[in-house]
Amino acid sequence: MPISRLAPGPRLSGVVIHGDTVYLAGHVVADRSLGVKGQTEAILKRIDERLAEAGTDKTRLLSVTIYLADIATFDEMNEAWDAWVDRAAAPARATVGAALASPEYLVEISAIAAR
Amino acid sequence: MPISRLAPGPRLSGVVIHGDTVYLAGHVVADRSLGVKGQTEAILKRIDERLAEAGTDKTRLLSVTIYLADIATFDEMNEAWDAWVDRAAAPARATVGAALASPEYLVEISAIAAR
Amino acid sequence: MPISRLAPGPRLSGVVIHGDTVYLAGHVVADRSLGVKGQTEAILKRIDERLAEAGTDKTRLLSVTIYLADIATFDEMNEAWDAWVDRAAAPARATVGAALASPEYLVEISAIAAR
Repeated sequence: MPISRLAPGPRLSGVVIHGDTVYLAGHVVADRSLGVKGQTEAILKRIDERLAEAGTDKTRLLSVTIYLADIATFDEMNEAWDAWVDRAAAPARATVGAALASPEYLVEISAIAAR
Repeated sequence: MPISRLAPGPRLSGVVIHGDTVYLAGHVVADRSLGVKGQTEAILKRIDERLAEAGTDKTRLLSVTIYLADIATFDEMNEAWDAWVDRAAAPARATVGAALASPEYLVEISAIAAR
Repeated sequence: MPISRLAPGPRLSGVVIHGDTVYLAGHVVADRSLGVKGQTEAILKRIDERLAEAGTDKTRLLSVTIYLADIATFDEMNEAWDAWVDRAAAPARATVGAALASPEYLVEISAIAAR
């Protein structure tokens, strides 16, 4: 079964597609000045774009992993998440606190979707 | 390929099924008074139930990720794990320490299974 | 669809294969005296071996998760990663800081590949 990649880079690809399963890299924000809610909104917007490029959308998310630099921002992250997620098609999700690659990154989100 | 969900909620689904692949959300315990071994046992019991609802069982687990609030509880978690896992059909597994959504949560387990 | 396992153990399997999807456990180093770059190199060498046993290779990696005991070693880990990864076929990747099972483990890497 062929593999295709979107937003490919020498270190990682933003999206790797295998059959009808779509793997999204851990996404962080471009504008590091944003707060937790703003970073989450920006990441989810980017994920919408990536899913569209892959021929799918958020109603076909299978599994999402959310890493928070500070787990105390769980509720603030969820304000953005709850406004974005399709309430009738929510993915499996795990959210944990973990150190992120830059101290300015407050949220990182990876995902697996179907297309 | 259709997607189905078990234990669906507005924020996340407990289980998302895509073809013959079953994605389980990060599961935590309902009774937060339990210790690490007790929380692990309770979560694994819940995972057994979820897998049964999805038409599969622990012998068809593919990959499991275990998050511990305190990595020093690795051995205590494994007491429950080792008593539960099918020794002839153990999944790929990664275990790391990470902050969990409530300070009373000591263990969180997500998984991918086949059915 | 049948499941097969490589490097099976009573607690976890090194590799679980489901159809044409290959799940690799979180891999750590055997020689704990190595630094971050050395541990990463050793783990990636082991992953090459595991993928070969599964009938595939690093050009068919789909998704990789890298856990670093100290996120400040991100660049040092990447020195080994960048020298290893196929720049034309890089997987989706997420890298976070997390406590690992032994204080001597500096890096743990899990992965999903196609075969």
